Amino acid sequence: MASLDDLPLRDDLVGRVPYGAPQLDVPVRLNVNENAFPIADVVIADVVASVREAIAGVHRYPDREFTELREAFAGYLGHGLTAESIWAANGSNEVLQHVLQAFGGPGRSLLSFAPTYSMYPLLAQGVGATYVAEPRADDFTLDAATVVAAIERHDPDIVFLCAPNNPTGTALSLDVIEAACEAARGMVLVDEAYAEFAHDRAQTALALLPRFERLIVSRTMSKAFAYAGVRVGYLAADPAVVDALRLVRLPYHLSALTQAAALAALRHAPTMLARVDELRVQRDRIVAELAAMGFEPYASDANFVLFGGLADPHAAFDGMLADGVLIRDVGIPHTLRVTAGTPAETDAFLASVARFAPSARP
Amino acid sequence: MASLDDLPLRDDLVGRVPYGAPQLDVPVRLNVNENAFPIADVVIADVVASVREAIAGVHRYPDREFTELREAFAGYLGHGLTAESIWAANGSNEVLQHVLQAFGGPGRSLLSFAPTYSMYPLLAQGVGATYVAEPRADDFTLDAATVVAAIERHDPDIVFLCAPNNPTGTALSLDVIEAACEAARGMVLVDEAYAEFAHDRAQTALALLPRFERLIVSRTMSKAFAYAGVRVGYLAADPAVVDALRLVRLPYHLSALTQAAALAALRHAPTMLARVDELRVQRDRIVAELAAMGFEPYASDANFVLFGGLADPHAAFDGMLADGVLIRDVGIPHTLRVTAGTPAETDAFLASVARFAPSARP
Repeated sequence: MASLDDLPLRDDLVGRVPYGAPQLDVPVRLNVNENAFPIADVVIADVVASVREAIAGVHRYPDREFTELREAFAGYLGHGLTAESIWAANGSNEVLQHVLQAFGGPGRSLLSFAPTYSMYPLLAQGVGATYVAEPRADDFTLDAATVVAAIERHDPDIVFLCAPNNPTGTALSLDVIEAACEAARGMVLVDEAYAEFAHDRAQTALALLPRFERLIVSRTMSKAFAYAGVRVGYLAADPAVVDALRLVRLPYHLSALTQAAALAALRHAPTMLARVDELRVQRDRIVAELAAMGFEPYASDANFVLFGGLADPHAAFDGMLADGVLIRDVGIPHTLRVTAGTPAETDAFLASVARFAPSARP
Repeated sequence: MASLDDLPLRDDLVGRVPYGAPQLDVPVRLNVNENAFPIADVVIADVVASVREAIAGVHRYPDREFTELREAFAGYLGHGLTAESIWAANGSNEVLQHVLQAFGGPGRSLLSFAPTYSMYPLLAQGVGATYVAEPRADDFTLDAATVVAAIERHDPDIVFLCAPNNPTGTALSLDVIEAACEAARGMVLVDEAYAEFAHDRAQTALALLPRFERLIVSRTMSKAFAYAGVRVGYLAADPAVVDALRLVRLPYHLSALTQAAALAALRHAPTMLARVDELRVQRDRIVAELAAMGFEPYASDANFVLFGGLADPHAAFDGMLADGVLIRDVGIPHTLRVTAGTPAETDAFLASVARFAPSARP
C-alpha cells in the first residue's frame, strides 16, 4: 500500500486536506445549514412515484438537456424566465464549477468579498483560476462603492456575490448588484442559495437579468426544498450563458433520477415554502434571544445566524457539543454560526448556548 | 438576448460545439452502447424501496464518503478489494475527470491510443492538460512494444488504456498493461467500462492492482448494470489514489438517491449479468452475420461491433435511419459502429444493413 507522497499528485494539491465539515452523529445537528424538516409525506409519495417511472427507462441515457426540469425551474422562479435561461447541475457547487470552467480557468481571476462561502477559493483553484478576496465592512455588509472600487482595482473575469451571504447571513441590496454589473468587464454571479429565507423574497437579482447579459443568478434545492441529499443546484442567466455552460458540462451530467426527483419536489413548492416560513420564525427567534442573552447576533436573511460576543468560542463549541448540539466555527474570531432548526432543536440550542452567554458570566 | 460572442468565454472554448450524439426518437436505437434491456421488475421494486427510504432523509447532506456503496463495489469486484480502494462519481466521465484533476492539470499530459473513447481529449482539455494520442495497429490492437515506445517518447503524467476499446471493441491483454505500468513514471488508468461483456471476464486489470500502486481500473454501471440513466462510474486503485481523489471531488458529489439506487442494483448483480450474457450472444451473432454478408467486422469484447467494408458509410447510415435503425458513425473511414441490442433489435439492424452489404452490390 502506497502513501500520497508516493504518487505524482498535482503540485498545488500537495499537503491539502479534503474539504468538508465533520459528519457527527449527535442529537441536534445545526452545523451545515440543512433544512431542519424532513420532506413531507405527500411530497415523498410523489417523488417515489416519479422515480419509479424514471427507473423503468434508466437503461437509456437521460435527457442531456433536462428540458422538462429547466421548464419547471423557470416556472418556479417566475420573472418571465423560460427554459432557455436555466441551467442545473449536481448541487450549486457544480453549477459554480461550470461557470468557472466556462469563464475562468488558468490566467483568469475570480473576485469575492470575505468572509464568504468557503468553497469559492477551492472552486477557483480547481480550474486553475486566481482567487482574490476583498474585505467586507465590520458588520459584514457590502456597499456599491466598495464593490466598484474592488472591481476597478482587480479587473476580475468573474465576480461572485453571495446574497444573503454565507456564513454571515448578510443581505445584499440590488443597487450593489447593479453597480457591480455596470462596473465589471466580466461575469457577475449572485449566489442566492438562501434566497427563499430572506425577509423580503421579492429582493432578488432575478429582477435584474433582463438588463445585464453578463449577470448570473444561482440557486439550490438543498435549502428551501430540503433537498441537500438530492444534489440539485441551478441558475438563471441569458440563454447565451447557458450555451457556454453546455461546452464544459460532462455529457448526461444530471441523472434521470435526479431530474425526476427535482421535478416532483418543484410541483410541491408551496408546501416546501411553508416550511421555510417556519424556519424564518426560528431564525428571527434565535437572533432575538441571543441578543437578549447579551450575545451579538448579526442580522440574517438566511436559515442560520452568526453571533459574536463569545469570550471563548472553542470552549462554547465544545460545551454545546457535550450537550448534543453541533454548531459551526467558521473561523471568524469570537463568533460561531448556528442553523435555524425545528422549534425543539432551537430550544435545545438556546438552552445550551445560554451557559456561555455574556449575561451568565460572573 | 446576447450571443456567445458577446460573452467573455475562455479562449480555448471559442468556436467549440457541445459534445454528444444526437438523441433521436427512432424505433431501434443502437448508437450509444446502452444496455438494450430495461431493468428487471424485481430489481425495480428493490430500487424503488431503497429510494423511498433514502428520500426520507434527504433534508440532510448525503454520506460524503458513500462508505456502504464503496463496500458493495468492493464485494462485486472481488480480487480481495476493500472499500478503501474504491471511488465513485456521477458517471465514469466524472471518475476520469477526478483522476485528471488530481494527477493532470495545466502543464501535465495524458497519453492514449487512437482511435479510442472520444471524451479523453475533451476531459484533458477541461483540466488544462495536454492530450497526446499515438496510433493503434490497422486492426486496432495494441501491443506492449507500441505502448512502451509511446510512453518513452512522451513521458506522460497519465496513460489511459481503454480495454475493451471504445469504439473498436478491441481486447487488451494483461501483458500490455503490465508493460505500461513498468514503463510509466505517472498514473496508468485502464478504462474497463465494457469489461463485463468480454469473452473472458477473468481477464481484468483488477488482477494487477496488488503489484502496481499507480494503476487505476475504472468501471461503470451504465453498461452491464443497464444504469446509463443513473450515472454511476467507479474505480479501484491503491487507497492512496483514493486519498488523492478526495482532494478534488466536490463535497457530497454523490447524491443519496444515487447511492441508494446503486446499492440496490448491486444486490442483483447475477440478474444483471445474465442479461449481459444475452447481449454477448447478440454481439457475437452480429459479428458472424456481418462477416457472412461480406462486411469486415472487428473482433469485439464489448456490447458493440465496429465494421468496415462499407463503400459509402454515410449513405448506409442514412438508409438505416430511414428504416428506423439508428447506429453510429464514429469517424473511422469506411466503418460504422452498432450496439448489440435485444434479439428483435438485432434482427432489425441485420435486415436493414443487408441492403448495404458488399454481397448485395451489383
